[in-house]
Amino acid sequence: MLTVAYDGTAYCGWQIQPNGNTIEAELIKALEELLQHPVKLIGASRTDAGVHAEGNVAVFDTTVRMPASRIAFALNTYLPSDIRIQESKEVPATFHPRYCNTQKTYVYRILNRQIPDPCRRLYAFFYYRPLNETAMQAAADYLVGTHDFTSFATHKPEITNHVRTIESLDVTREGDLITIRITGNGFLYNMVRIIAGTLIRVGTGDLSPAKMPAILAAKDRFASAETARPEGLTLVRIAYPDGDDQMEQGGN
Amino acid sequence: MLTVAYDGTAYCGWQIQPNGNTIEAELIKALEELLQHPVKLIGASRTDAGVHAEGNVAVFDTTVRMPASRIAFALNTYLPSDIRIQESKEVPATFHPRYCNTQKTYVYRILNRQIPDPCRRLYAFFYYRPLNETAMQAAADYLVGTHDFTSFATHKPEITNHVRTIESLDVTREGDLITIRITGNGFLYNMVRIIAGTLIRVGTGDLSPAKMPAILAAKDRFASAETARPEGLTLVRIAYPDGDDQMEQGGN
Repeated sequence: MLTVAYDGTAYCGWQIQPNGNTIEAELIKALEELLQHPVKLIGASRTDAGVHAEGNVAVFDTTVRMPASRIAFALNTYLPSDIRIQESKEVPATFHPRYCNTQKTYVYRILNRQIPDPCRRLYAFFYYRPLNETAMQAAADYLVGTHDFTSFATHKPEITNHVRTIESLDVTREGDLITIRITGNGFLYNMVRIIAGTLIRVGTGDLSPAKMPAILAAKDRFASAETARPEGLTLVRIAYPDGDDQMEQGGN
Repeated sequence: MLTVAYDGTAYCGWQIQPNGNTIEAELIKALEELLQHPVKLIGASRTDAGVHAEGNVAVFDTTVRMPASRIAFALNTYLPSDIRIQESKEVPATFHPRYCNTQKTYVYRILNRQIPDPCRRLYAFFYYRPLNETAMQAAADYLVGTHDFTSFATHKPEITNHVRTIESLDVTREGDLITIRITGNGFLYNMVRIIAGTLIRVGTGDLSPAKMPAILAAKDRFASAETARPEGLTLVRIAYPDGDDQMEQGGN
């Protein structure tokens, strides 16, 4: 099991595709160079183009005898500098990173100032209109809990159950940087970025926090706001409470 | 007078040169497109390849009648996204950004952890050996004040006076990020990066803080340590106490 951090700027997202670089393709190439046998990789989260990760998760099988914890260091020597394995460890052969109980944490960063900062342009969404983070938090509070999030998802016909649980959703400001931090048991397609886009419209005053229950109740993608740009989004962590990582799971 | 922020990753430094992109060349190109007349630009600090800036300073003359404060916004539409003018204002025609009393602040960032973080690889120097920031601060304290910094400069034959004043030099840690913040009335060539490289050797324990007076006294570049890599360095601010910016000058 690999914990994978990457700068998504140069990639067409996680999932392998015929044209364009992907995180998955780079990982498979590096793994096959290291292990010298074909590798089938299963990723936990197929992040979109331009989205970053501190801790995405992927698993693979190997016949090579090498201490599992050393694979991270060895693999990093084969990977480009914008992908770095943070940890590697052995998991049961039955472990599947998507078909089990997880807790995911994302952060969406907004640089809220008059003029962009070149050194932060790739890792935060630049937005020049002043945002009221108190109003954003008030709106966010309506989304915490178990709801049907149809209004906050890009439609995918194969997904029929749109009920998800958001465990926490916090909006904080440090100077010109607003951070939206969201933890839940699973997210629909584009859900975090649509929540971020909707909270931004609340932050400008265009949308009242009190409208959030009606947006949820509408179960209609057109009731919420635009999908926020990918560079602001980072997948921070995926916890597997039933297997690894019990400690930080808390009361859920 | 322009306050210029840039991500230095893609550039061969500030100063225009025959081969390779430079910040100065991009600025002149954008200014000439905006103003439609040839522009001679005078920069305050010729940062090296890969070094970043939040607030470098440059001045130019123009015959175009446009409110000075609007030039920042107009110019940004002609510049690549890794360069952004933060402020523009009129200064006296006699103002020269290098030949006057200044106070410069640099930050050198070190990411001190076992494995690199892809999203910070361009803006902090990655160093895996544990660094003791208390020892680094103890060494730094010896450098504060007015000294001959020959031991902390790459030799330039045209510079004969190596006496400079460091007003403050602070080493702080937040989690895995160590920040060296240095303010002074001027710096010799590579001085901040050689100080950073030397403090890193103190941080590992290879060099005792108590050796700093002897290193200063040697007046020999070989007495100090290697020049630290450029990506960790950011020129934060240049203050002109005699002209603009009186307010933040403090007691110097």
